[in-house]
Amino acid sequence: MLSNVFSHLPPGTWIDIWPSQSALLATTPEAEYGPFILTGVLLTLIVIYTMSKLGGELSKRLELPPVLGELVGGVVVGISALHLLVFPETGATAADSVLMSGLQWLGHLDATAATHIFQSQSEVISVLAELGVMVLLFEIGLESDLRELGKVGYQAAVVAIVGVVVPLALGTIGLIALFHVPTIPAVFAGAALTATSIGITSKVLSELGHLKSTEGQIIVGAAVIDDVLGIIVLAVVASLAKTGEVDLLNVVYLIVSASAFLLGAILLGKVINQSFVAIATQLQTRGALLIPAISFALVMAVLANTIHLEAILGAFAAGLVLDETDQRKELDQQVMPVADILVPIFFVTVGAKADLSVLNPAVAENRAGLIIATFLIAVAILGKVVTGWAVFGQPGINRLAIGVGMVPRGEVGLVFAGIGSASGVLDRPLEAGIIVMVILTTFLAPPLLQRALKTQSGSAPATMPAAD
Amino acid sequence: MLSNVFSHLPPGTWIDIWPSQSALLATTPEAEYGPFILTGVLLTLIVIYTMSKLGGELSKRLELPPVLGELVGGVVVGISALHLLVFPETGATAADSVLMSGLQWLGHLDATAATHIFQSQSEVISVLAELGVMVLLFEIGLESDLRELGKVGYQAAVVAIVGVVVPLALGTIGLIALFHVPTIPAVFAGAALTATSIGITSKVLSELGHLKSTEGQIIVGAAVIDDVLGIIVLAVVASLAKTGEVDLLNVVYLIVSASAFLLGAILLGKVINQSFVAIATQLQTRGALLIPAISFALVMAVLANTIHLEAILGAFAAGLVLDETDQRKELDQQVMPVADILVPIFFVTVGAKADLSVLNPAVAENRAGLIIATFLIAVAILGKVVTGWAVFGQPGINRLAIGVGMVPRGEVGLVFAGIGSASGVLDRPLEAGIIVMVILTTFLAPPLLQRALKTQSGSAPATMPAAD
Repeated sequence: MLSNVFSHLPPGTWIDIWPSQSALLATTPEAEYGPFILTGVLLTLIVIYTMSKLGGELSKRLELPPVLGELVGGVVVGISALHLLVFPETGATAADSVLMSGLQWLGHLDATAATHIFQSQSEVISVLAELGVMVLLFEIGLESDLRELGKVGYQAAVVAIVGVVVPLALGTIGLIALFHVPTIPAVFAGAALTATSIGITSKVLSELGHLKSTEGQIIVGAAVIDDVLGIIVLAVVASLAKTGEVDLLNVVYLIVSASAFLLGAILLGKVINQSFVAIATQLQTRGALLIPAISFALVMAVLANTIHLEAILGAFAAGLVLDETDQRKELDQQVMPVADILVPIFFVTVGAKADLSVLNPAVAENRAGLIIATFLIAVAILGKVVTGWAVFGQPGINRLAIGVGMVPRGEVGLVFAGIGSASGVLDRPLEAGIIVMVILTTFLAPPLLQRALKTQSGSAPATMPAAD
Repeated sequence: MLSNVFSHLPPGTWIDIWPSQSALLATTPEAEYGPFILTGVLLTLIVIYTMSKLGGELSKRLELPPVLGELVGGVVVGISALHLLVFPETGATAADSVLMSGLQWLGHLDATAATHIFQSQSEVISVLAELGVMVLLFEIGLESDLRELGKVGYQAAVVAIVGVVVPLALGTIGLIALFHVPTIPAVFAGAALTATSIGITSKVLSELGHLKSTEGQIIVGAAVIDDVLGIIVLAVVASLAKTGEVDLLNVVYLIVSASAFLLGAILLGKVINQSFVAIATQLQTRGALLIPAISFALVMAVLANTIHLEAILGAFAAGLVLDETDQRKELDQQVMPVADILVPIFFVTVGAKADLSVLNPAVAENRAGLIIATFLIAVAILGKVVTGWAVFGQPGINRLAIGVGMVPRGEVGLVFAGIGSASGVLDRPLEAGIIVMVILTTFLAPPLLQRALKTQSGSAPATMPAAD
């Protein structure tokens, strides 16, 4: 239709009919490509929401955690299959993206324009995904009870430390002894085994209604501490890989700043809470509760980022602090729809970025990787499952569930794999092995955790809610 | 602190301690700059939310519409004053942005990196602002009553047509006769006078509780039709400016596709509604109502975009259609928090992009502009205010309110000004005059509309709600 009507125009004049968005005669690339970037983002969001609902609902019907379906939905549209949602970080170009190719064809765009639009659109979706996991952690913080978390604090710390030391030691030693991997890449791979995806674990716990159980609070607490430990381990390993030495000052700085941040947030909680309530009750315009709350989460995220912690830890701490306010219920209710539209972007994106082609045994390189992967997966699961038995002073607790809860590597594991890949210290089989390990632990953990929570008795609620 | 601890490291090694976000040893610019883009976006959002609340609350205290305060808040942090929020489209570079300079200093970034990060971050904020105005229009659509709108459809069409023809004719003829402006730039400036900001008008109506009054529905309907007419006028003027001829086929195509889209959405409304309800009631996971609703709005926005209408018209049509569902109340309640966090981004951004330096009479070029601006403003207000008296068959209606409701040019006016500026057909004084006209009508309209709704009696509710 469109091409018929405008067939008498020379190529390029199409923008004559797209003037409402300042594409016409625009001088800067931002203004010129703006409408295409928006269209690309809108199309991508449609794909993400469709897959998150298809996957989530199917998963629910199969009595699996919905988040697993969202991850798989992401895989289906991602780099491994349909190529509707691909990212430059994974090496994809505009030509690899089916959406972008369509947009390019519709808009008669040249390769330079397509590359610019593809990168900008990917950037926007990446930021939305990061905002999604921040809102998720903010919500988890709101749902978590600070006093309850405090009670299990020591246990959570023990679980986290065991969950870092065991996989790191077993993985590094095993790779050196069994596979004759040199020390530095072996340590790197061992470090990748230490990660725990706080996002996936807490989402599954929330979906199964186990977030507030003792097990749930231990897992969340341990995942938070694990995240901090992971950052320290990664800093150590990275400086080892780069200079051959460990920068002790840096490690001390990270430990001190991380502890100060988390403890400071908790200790200042009361003061912050009172100020928050004082501000929120003064406001008379729309968003009187939500905007100050979200702003506080953003400030905490930036603060965390500034001292080199992950932004999501700041968002979690903000939620934990605001959990104590009287308006918590109302705030919960308002954060929920925001989480509903942002969180799926994160999980579908994680799935889309997982490159399953490393699982293909027909490629010779992959076979060596798959053998290493088998070992890494065994260590990855074993090294985390044992953490449950490190819990003390909690008779009758579901130790299996705690251990399994620490298994998913998720987005944190992908970061480790990405850094390893970029550093050049890993050879192809080892790199592939790590990626396979990350993918499988991520996808196996939700159903395993559900089963662990179901079959073993413990202090957790025996009944499962019908809807999440 | 930070610089002390790391002062012994050579520049550039800072990223050693920022490894959690894959900045370390990253190979693609996306992965390397990713954490900075996120930090930039988070900081920008903090600025936006702070200003939207400061401005909105202050405005409310002064008994003015909150949205005016959000716009002024944007001006304070924007290109005209603090330079915390600037955009490449308005000619700003990374060095012009105070936030970016801070980030560059903190991260030891070079100019290339800063430029890349600045552009990406601006792109993300621009898309968020566009999503904001889409959610606003979706919400306005949900709050509007299709039958009520249908009843005033003819009146709205008359108001829209009069509001396009009168300012276009008066403006063009006046500029030629009084200021001896050549025909093409005069027509361009006249066309810029035809715009109406549906976003600002509907937000003010909603804030004052007048959205559902007959006056409110006529204004919203007329603003929607005006938006379609504006696109057609712009297409005509643009092809005139470029080739000296009017592309009739293009105009016919735009009229037919716009009418088909709006009528199609309304006529297919029932069917869409039933499918929507059928899908939403089947879903068992979180966001069962919100995700299908938002996805539908996104699809409609893309559809509108594809036939060269504005995306916000699609979002409005989607809201109008879903307004008829039984779950409307629940949906309303869930869309509200999403609007609360996205809509302020739009209004603060519009304020930030308004360059008030054209108002400075100390610059010689501006003086000629200000004289033309005085004429343009008179035509801009008069040409829209008369539209109220074009309403027929509605005795006792508040004609002044309807006329004043059509006055704000807002973001649509800025688009016209931007295109005019880029096209090169406008000389500096005329360009400055148009920008001054857009800014003043935008900032004057909210308080004028409030006054018009208050002072004249009509079919609108006499009492004003305490909170919006």
